[in-house]
Amino acid sequence: MGNVVARSIHRSISCLLEGSENDGRQVIEDEIRVNQMQIELDDFVATLMARNQPVARDMRLLISVLKINSDLERMGDLAVNIAQRSLTLLHESVPETVHLIRKMAEVSEEMVRLSLDAFVQKNASLAFELLKNDDEVDRLRDAIYVEVTDAMHRDSANIHIGLGLMSVARNLERIADHATNIAEDVIFVVHGADVRHHRETGAET
Amino acid sequence: MGNVVARSIHRSISCLLEGSENDGRQVIEDEIRVNQMQIELDDFVATLMARNQPVARDMRLLISVLKINSDLERMGDLAVNIAQRSLTLLHESVPETVHLIRKMAEVSEEMVRLSLDAFVQKNASLAFELLKNDDEVDRLRDAIYVEVTDAMHRDSANIHIGLGLMSVARNLERIADHATNIAEDVIFVVHGADVRHHRETGAET
Repeated sequence: MGNVVARSIHRSISCLLEGSENDGRQVIEDEIRVNQMQIELDDFVATLMARNQPVARDMRLLISVLKINSDLERMGDLAVNIAQRSLTLLHESVPETVHLIRKMAEVSEEMVRLSLDAFVQKNASLAFELLKNDDEVDRLRDAIYVEVTDAMHRDSANIHIGLGLMSVARNLERIADHATNIAEDVIFVVHGADVRHHRETGAET
Repeated sequence: MGNVVARSIHRSISCLLEGSENDGRQVIEDEIRVNQMQIELDDFVATLMARNQPVARDMRLLISVLKINSDLERMGDLAVNIAQRSLTLLHESVPETVHLIRKMAEVSEEMVRLSLDAFVQKNASLAFELLKNDDEVDRLRDAIYVEVTDAMHRDSANIHIGLGLMSVARNLERIADHATNIAEDVIFVVHGADVRHHRETGAET
């Protein structure tokens, strides 16, 4: 499920940056599989919990799986948002801001990869590593907003594409937030420490 | 927790519509309590699960509580987003679009109330009732986007306030989505049927 979602995120961005309509359509198609996998995994975990009466530590792991499952499914939805928006921008000439979107996508995708690796390896240091990237994502999001708003003020012809790029940036930011949630769950599973809400980095703008 | 979150949503909108700075600040303050309640409730449920080894039906209820807990906490975050944005718009003259925001807030708040009532009463009909409102929220969101984009094209002085109102509309839509999640969980608890992903209504725009 993590692999399918990571690939969808990559494709949604490639739809925007390389103008690949194919990639965009594939993301929308794959969402059905992701939704189905989420339901199956939830059912599987609920059955495990009820049948095997796990002890506290195993219960913590299973609860984390439920949460990560929901984070992955939401990431899939966000990739669909990006793909759908990118499909409406296929024939627009893309402004300079795009280099910031490219950078933001790279950092976000790296966070998704790290979060999945951290979970599979039960590696808390990898999870902590990831948490550092979240500020970079917020910084890039802010920079994109500033550039886009300027462009919109300069020329109202930029409003359509500008709103599109802001939407992509916002969805990437939310993808990075879900990767952060997964990292926090990994730390919770490994150390039993709840690191949620200790480092929230401000609202959507 | 539901009551605190419902009040925060109401206050965040009152910060925008009545220009109440006090209400906006209160929302931001109350988020700390909501976060704390989320952690306590998660811990409580995990302990219950591990100690009492509930049977399948009770396990389903407890898993739903974990999910609803996370939905409520996210709603609190979204109310903070609205409050923070509204605080930056306190001294702006608000355009006509505001009547649509008012309507959208009414429908969304009603959905939140219904979702909490449905859960407390384990009332699936109430939950189904709520699901009908989701299309209305999407329709209002679309109408706001059209009006705001027009206003931005007409006069670039509208860009700042326009982006603000779009952000509020988007956050309201996401609040309504979380109310929908809660309703779906209630239906799952009552009927054992998974109604997720059967009626998704399209992406954030």
